[in-house]
Amino acid sequence: MQISHSQLANMEQRFRATLINSIPGYKCLQMVGTSNRDGISNIGLFNSIFHLGANPALLGMVFRPLTPEHDTFNNIMETGHYTFNNVLPWFYKPAHQTSASYPSEESEFAICGFNKQYLSEFKAPFVQESNIKIGLEFRECIDVSINNTKILIGEVVHILLDEHILGDDGYIDHTKAETVTVVGLDSYFTTQPLERLPYAKTNEKLNKQITQHKV
Amino acid sequence: MQISHSQLANMEQRFRATLINSIPGYKCLQMVGTSNRDGISNIGLFNSIFHLGANPALLGMVFRPLTPEHDTFNNIMETGHYTFNNVLPWFYKPAHQTSASYPSEESEFAICGFNKQYLSEFKAPFVQESNIKIGLEFRECIDVSINNTKILIGEVVHILLDEHILGDDGYIDHTKAETVTVVGLDSYFTTQPLERLPYAKTNEKLNKQITQHKV
Repeated sequence: MQISHSQLANMEQRFRATLINSIPGYKCLQMVGTSNRDGISNIGLFNSIFHLGANPALLGMVFRPLTPEHDTFNNIMETGHYTFNNVLPWFYKPAHQTSASYPSEESEFAICGFNKQYLSEFKAPFVQESNIKIGLEFRECIDVSINNTKILIGEVVHILLDEHILGDDGYIDHTKAETVTVVGLDSYFTTQPLERLPYAKTNEKLNKQITQHKV
Repeated sequence: MQISHSQLANMEQRFRATLINSIPGYKCLQMVGTSNRDGISNIGLFNSIFHLGANPALLGMVFRPLTPEHDTFNNIMETGHYTFNNVLPWFYKPAHQTSASYPSEESEFAICGFNKQYLSEFKAPFVQESNIKIGLEFRECIDVSINNTKILIGEVVHILLDEHILGDDGYIDHTKAETVTVVGLDSYFTTQPLERLPYAKTNEKLNKQITQHKV
């Protein structure tokens, strides 16, 4: 079936939101830990997170048009620090629950049953229950005028993880970690490895590749 | 274990690239179809793709610092059109092979064994073998000065998919589609559904959520 631009424009709003949020496929799911300058902590659930570069190590994330009480954004602006914490199968339900709109003075850590973990001189809390944790320092905020979103860029300044998850070549084994992925805003998945492939070169294994292709 | 900012800065370059590319977890994997103004087609493999908004329907993607011969970027600038095409388990190997650096005058469609599919008045080819295909029109290019990358924003103007993949509420069923996801640049995965959860509200099911949390 084919859906045209004008059909998209005329769709019922929630149908379109569900369609467009789910159509690109699996996303990077992170609980984002922050704290305001009074020490009230927050967890926000984000899936619009992307790799921007490895040197310096930069990750981007998208904020929808902001309401004044957007705690995660305000806290990052106040302290300059935030954390990404992966979601595991045994706590995807309370992780999802952190996406509810709790008042700023209440902490999703306490409400949803997560424990805070701090590093010295780093103002944002990590989620103790996660096994891959990234500490980021705010670098840049880009205003996207086309739809009033913001793209926030941070640099990785801390990594906390179980040692057996890190491979000899730097590869993080999310199968061992049991990291959960998401489609749209609400559909959670575990994964099964197909294969890790070597760097693709133009001059080799071409026939082999094509013969495995069974249109 | 803990990895500090200075350890990251002093890492062997490929180790750090593998680490930072893999640490955020599962990503949206798409074969990006384009054509230049002479009709030479191209497939580029991308995983830095993110949801930017549903109305208008906008998706973002990251380009690393560009070499002059970056076909995907140049073709989008020339024609204004590009396509996202999901990767399926039976062709993840030739899909990976499209990431090799073929010369501009050679098409990854022909070399890697994919078939082109065109819509009238839309200049970019879709990958026929995919079962979820998105046609995009270029809207904006943001230069990210901090590391000379570019964030390209496009609007969804066509969707092609098998009808049984689209749910009654707009949800795209990537389990039925068998969409493949990726970690880093080279590690491919299938998925298994955990659960699709209802919209999280502050006033309900809280105790139930917390008791399922077994620290």
